[in-house]
Amino acid sequence: MTTTTRRGGRPASGEPVLDRAFRLLDAFTDAETSMTLTRLSDRAGIPLSSTLRLAQHLSRLGALERRSDGTFTMGLRMLEYAALAPRGHGLRAIALPYMEDLHRASRQHVQLAVREKDEGVIVERLSAPGAGKVLYHVGARVPLHGTGLGLVLLAHSRPEFQESYLQRELFLEPEHIPLAAVDLRTQLHEVRTSGVVHMARALPEPAASVAAPIFDRSGDCAAVISVVGADGSLDTRMLEPAVVAIARAISRDLARGGRDPQAGRSPG
Amino acid sequence: MTTTTRRGGRPASGEPVLDRAFRLLDAFTDAETSMTLTRLSDRAGIPLSSTLRLAQHLSRLGALERRSDGTFTMGLRMLEYAALAPRGHGLRAIALPYMEDLHRASRQHVQLAVREKDEGVIVERLSAPGAGKVLYHVGARVPLHGTGLGLVLLAHSRPEFQESYLQRELFLEPEHIPLAAVDLRTQLHEVRTSGVVHMARALPEPAASVAAPIFDRSGDCAAVISVVGADGSLDTRMLEPAVVAIARAISRDLARGGRDPQAGRSPG
Repeated sequence: MTTTTRRGGRPASGEPVLDRAFRLLDAFTDAETSMTLTRLSDRAGIPLSSTLRLAQHLSRLGALERRSDGTFTMGLRMLEYAALAPRGHGLRAIALPYMEDLHRASRQHVQLAVREKDEGVIVERLSAPGAGKVLYHVGARVPLHGTGLGLVLLAHSRPEFQESYLQRELFLEPEHIPLAAVDLRTQLHEVRTSGVVHMARALPEPAASVAAPIFDRSGDCAAVISVVGADGSLDTRMLEPAVVAIARAISRDLARGGRDPQAGRSPG
Repeated sequence: MTTTTRRGGRPASGEPVLDRAFRLLDAFTDAETSMTLTRLSDRAGIPLSSTLRLAQHLSRLGALERRSDGTFTMGLRMLEYAALAPRGHGLRAIALPYMEDLHRASRQHVQLAVREKDEGVIVERLSAPGAGKVLYHVGARVPLHGTGLGLVLLAHSRPEFQESYLQRELFLEPEHIPLAAVDLRTQLHEVRTSGVVHMARALPEPAASVAAPIFDRSGDCAAVISVVGADGSLDTRMLEPAVVAIARAISRDLARGGRDPQAGRSPG
C-alpha cells in the first residue's frame, strides 16, 4: 500500500479518513446540533475542503444530513445503529416500561446508565417537567465517582478495575475538590453493603438522587437506575423502596432474556 | 494524492475506507446484533484481514464494541450520536411524554416516524405487551405507500416529491399487489382532507392502525404518530380523536420550540 502525505501530515490512505470522519461527528454537541460547513471545519480542526468532502460523503451514508439552509446535522441512520446496540436500546427495551412506572410513581427524572470503560453512559432518561433541570442527556457520559449512577457502576465492577480506578488522582466537579482514595473506597464498600446510593449536592444547584444496580443473568451489574429530583426537597429515603423494587424487576426480566418488544410484525 | 489498488479493485486512499466501515455497521441487524469476525466479514463482503483492522478501529472509536467472547456489537457511542439527531431524539424528547399519554390511554403500540428521502423512519415506539406483535422497531424504514405512517408523510410532502413518487412502479407488500398511481393519488387526497389515515390489513397477520400528522412552526409536516393494534379487533375510529388531539398537542409544543427536557443540570 502506498502512503502519501497530505496537509497536516496525515497519510492519505487507510485509517485517518475514518478518524477524521468521526472527528466531524464528534464536533456536534447538545448545544450545537446543527452547524455550517465553516463551523464544522473549525470545531473538528479539519481543513474546509476536506470537511466538505467528508461531510458530503457522510451525508450520502446517512450519518449526517444536510438541511435546506445548508447546515449539517446528525443523520437518522445513527438511530438505526443506536437501536442495534445491545447495551443501549436492547437494555432500554426491557427497562423502559419499568422506568415509566417509576417515573409515574415518583414524578421525578428517571435515568438508566451502563458503564463503558471508565465512565457511565446514560442510555435512557424520562424527564419530569416539574422536577427541575438535569445535567445529563441520553448518550451523555458521567464520572464513576461523585455521581450516584457512577458509584453504583464502580462499586459493582471487577475488583481489579476498582483498584486501578482508585489509583487515579480524582476530583469532585464542579468544585474541583480532591477525592481521597480511602474515602472513595469507603463509599464503594457502603454501596455494596446497602445496595443503593443516596446523593445530595448543593452545586451547581440543589439536587438529590437515589440509585440502585441492575444485574444480569450471571449476577454481573449490567446497568444502574436512578431517580433524580432537582428542587432540593426530594426525600430520597421515601423513594428508595420503589427504586430498589424496580431495579430488581428489571434484573429479573433481563435474566429471563427480556420480553423483546421489538420483534414481530404488523402495519405502520 | 496517490491512488493504489487493493484486492477488489478499491483504491487504498480516501473514501472507500469510510464506505467499508459503514458496510460493517450495516451488517448488523435486529436479528443479529452481535457477530464473530468471520460472520461480520461474510455479511459485509469484506476480506477477513480488512474486517479485523476496520472492526478494531471502529471499536477504538466506540462505534463498535468487542465483547469478552470476541464477538462484535454496535457500540454505545452510536447512542450519543443518535441523541444529537434533531429529527430523531430532538423530536422524540418533545413527543415522548405525549406518546406515553396515548400509550396509557389506548394500551396499544404507539409509533413516531419522520420522512427520510423516499421512506419513513421510526424514531420512537412504545410497545404494549398485550397489543400483538409489530413489524417495525426504532430505526426501521417503512414504505411511504401501503402503511398509515407512510401515507401521512407522503400526503404532506411537497407536491413535486409526491408527483415523482407517483411515477414509480409501486407494489403493496407482502402480497406484491401492484398499486396504481390513480389509487394512491386518491388515497393521498383523502389523507389531506380527513387529516388522518385508518389502515387495516389481514397479512402478514390481522392488524389495524390510525395515524395523524405532526406539523412544525412553518406548517410543514415534521412527523407522524400512529397507534397500532395487532389483535384484529382494534376499533381505530374510537381512537381517532385521541390520536388527532395528541398529534396537535405535539405540533403545538414543537412550534413553541419544545420543553427541551434535555437541557440543564443536576447530579446522576
